[in-house]
Amino acid sequence: MPPMLTLIKNVAVLTLDPAGTLLPDTNLILDGSLIESIGDVPPGLQPEVVINGYNHLAVPGFFNAHCHAPMTFERGWAEDLPLDRWFNERIWVAESALTSDDVYWGAALAACEMIRGGTVAFNDHYFYMDRVAEVVEQSGLKAALTWCQFGLGPEKEVGADLPGALAFVDRWQGGAGGRIRTVLGPHSPYVCPPAFLREISALAREHRLSLHIHLAESPAQVANSLAAHGLTPAALLAACGVFDVPCVAAHALYLTPEDIALLTAHNVSVAHCPATYMKLAMGVNDLRPLLAAGLNVALGTDGPGSNNDMDMQSAVRLAALLQKHHTGDAETLAGDLPLRLATANGARAMGFADSGVLAPGRPADLVLFDLDRPHLYPRHNLVANLVYAAKTSDVTHVFVDGRLLYANGELLTLDEAKIKAEADRHAKHMVSQSLRIVREYKA
Amino acid sequence: MPPMLTLIKNVAVLTLDPAGTLLPDTNLILDGSLIESIGDVPPGLQPEVVINGYNHLAVPGFFNAHCHAPMTFERGWAEDLPLDRWFNERIWVAESALTSDDVYWGAALAACEMIRGGTVAFNDHYFYMDRVAEVVEQSGLKAALTWCQFGLGPEKEVGADLPGALAFVDRWQGGAGGRIRTVLGPHSPYVCPPAFLREISALAREHRLSLHIHLAESPAQVANSLAAHGLTPAALLAACGVFDVPCVAAHALYLTPEDIALLTAHNVSVAHCPATYMKLAMGVNDLRPLLAAGLNVALGTDGPGSNNDMDMQSAVRLAALLQKHHTGDAETLAGDLPLRLATANGARAMGFADSGVLAPGRPADLVLFDLDRPHLYPRHNLVANLVYAAKTSDVTHVFVDGRLLYANGELLTLDEAKIKAEADRHAKHMVSQSLRIVREYKA
Repeated sequence: MPPMLTLIKNVAVLTLDPAGTLLPDTNLILDGSLIESIGDVPPGLQPEVVINGYNHLAVPGFFNAHCHAPMTFERGWAEDLPLDRWFNERIWVAESALTSDDVYWGAALAACEMIRGGTVAFNDHYFYMDRVAEVVEQSGLKAALTWCQFGLGPEKEVGADLPGALAFVDRWQGGAGGRIRTVLGPHSPYVCPPAFLREISALAREHRLSLHIHLAESPAQVANSLAAHGLTPAALLAACGVFDVPCVAAHALYLTPEDIALLTAHNVSVAHCPATYMKLAMGVNDLRPLLAAGLNVALGTDGPGSNNDMDMQSAVRLAALLQKHHTGDAETLAGDLPLRLATANGARAMGFADSGVLAPGRPADLVLFDLDRPHLYPRHNLVANLVYAAKTSDVTHVFVDGRLLYANGELLTLDEAKIKAEADRHAKHMVSQSLRIVREYKA
Repeated sequence: MPPMLTLIKNVAVLTLDPAGTLLPDTNLILDGSLIESIGDVPPGLQPEVVINGYNHLAVPGFFNAHCHAPMTFERGWAEDLPLDRWFNERIWVAESALTSDDVYWGAALAACEMIRGGTVAFNDHYFYMDRVAEVVEQSGLKAALTWCQFGLGPEKEVGADLPGALAFVDRWQGGAGGRIRTVLGPHSPYVCPPAFLREISALAREHRLSLHIHLAESPAQVANSLAAHGLTPAALLAACGVFDVPCVAAHALYLTPEDIALLTAHNVSVAHCPATYMKLAMGVNDLRPLLAAGLNVALGTDGPGSNNDMDMQSAVRLAALLQKHHTGDAETLAGDLPLRLATANGARAMGFADSGVLAPGRPADLVLFDLDRPHLYPRHNLVANLVYAAKTSDVTHVFVDGRLLYANGELLTLDEAKIKAEADRHAKHMVSQSLRIVREYKA
């Protein structure tokens, strides 16, 4: 595509810059993939696209810092269960029949949902990731993609052993015009043996790659780690070199003060996924010590098998509500902080560190919310309206790298009708196949 | 209006009957205000309205069991504060300038939001309730309306003393074709003196009215009641006769086992409002003992000054997530139970006990959800999709007493553009007036 000049006229802009600047009526000019300027329209400007931003609010798009997008195919498949039974009785059973096509259509469905909801980038951790990369390429989204590795021997991996994951990195690093970043992904310290954690960390250092891992999701995981290794899960990862490269630790719910200091010293990003913690009754942590230490805390939806959607707007509200509830402190995660976790902090976690703020020279990864909805009146506090009352359905326009992916109800890059039908068909086929496999295994 | 015959063709119906019947492809016939039949279309039927229900799900509409609808005017006005400071520093200050017109436009704005979100009835507790009754009459919604009373002497009341509240009852009981029920509303046992609680309860018995009151919102309220009266707040209300008539107790977070037995013995309904409890860091109760005792637990949004919306779909999801989180039991509020709290239980609490179930002869208070949305695929479990993934914006049609109030994005009974503008103007005027009053008082 040639560079495109876009003018968004008479729009309110929540920049999410350090000062929290809110411009009530201004103009946004996008030039190619970047924000050219915010303010007056220069005389003689000849934009190729003009959008009337009256009664709309421009904000940085959401960065979903931890998810398993293809798992839309397990939405509604594992309800009202605790984490261990959710995994063992439902999720891993269904995934026993997983195919590469399932991953493609599941991720494509997630992409439709994410774009409609104002998400511009996602940090995905799953299998058959070439197929997710295809979806990223086609959809126009940004993503950091991780082919999950168990490290239990090639026969235990789903579709790629460690050399295969590195080959995936070779194929896709910097792909889709720089919108794809590839990452290595040991599943977790409770699945991966320490020798494997050391091996994959060494490879990440050698190839200058980041890591994305699950950490400390339950008290039992911490107790087991202490019993087996004499170390907390976080300390074990540090000892294995996992934190010697940029790393996203998903969840990190059960941390000691020493763990928090360790993560902070290594610039680890923590991806917080409140819907999953509540739905699976996993408990939650107090984010205040992490934030006070200067840790980069970002927000994610996790997979739709647990939460059950890819809705970052809902994650923003839920994160704020859950922290206020959990800490008993209504002043926690105040003001625009929940939005910052979901935008700039996520962008930083995923290695798109220039994004997440609306300012000249920054990537044009942004979203327009229609403010002319009954639930967004009155206008005492636009930030509070956005955090606590706005809905994904208020999103009218989504730009990624200056390209319009969604406008007024229409997805501009994806064939949504086909994706819905194929995703539904593949999801039903997958679970019916998995039930057959289980029956044959038992017989 | 003459009776209207409506046919909704080829629709999925979640009846929420005792068996939890889900009919995947059927027809709904509405005759006047009632559901005539569910099933085959009789030959020769000549409906006046035909709706294509393909890919849509019909469910009972939501009954919002506790709210202060006019308080949309304080949406975003009192952020990130605990309950006591929220009241004292923001809410009661703003309300010092409250006018009857503010109430009208605030409630009208709430009505727009409620109808769009699939709410068919609301249980409102506020001031200048004639103006809310006008909104109910005009909008086509159902409501139980309570003019809040403090019982501290006529000069402390907002707009009506107790005889005034009874006059309101006389004017509106059974109004709007039976869509309005009027209720007496002592604010709470921590504001109202026991003598007043006895007086208003006696009047309710005499006039065969219900009561609607706030109960046990904090440990401090319980401690203060024990210190002042030697009774828990629930026991104090029982001793004053409050529970001798049908009563909705909002919140009821801090109950003893004896309190639960007392509420159960008196058939009290409890209105549970999870967003407020989280946002104001009030704590929450375990609903399992209440449900096990057979108490009628319903769901509410509370007022938009605290939560910050009138979104019952969000309340359904949040109630389920919060109970799973709070109890550590992922099997809590399983299946369709969260929906039942928001429909039939709310209807029962508000005295519209026939509603909340889709069956022949029941009131046609129902909603269509569009299932053809990316976040509602695949179709493993329609109930889970509805509880955890659906959004208010998936609502396409809302019927109350068989009358269509909303269809495909358009409100059919209210002038939404005017309401948004007037509500915004009145809200801004109210808070600016209140700030002036405070300045003059301090000077």
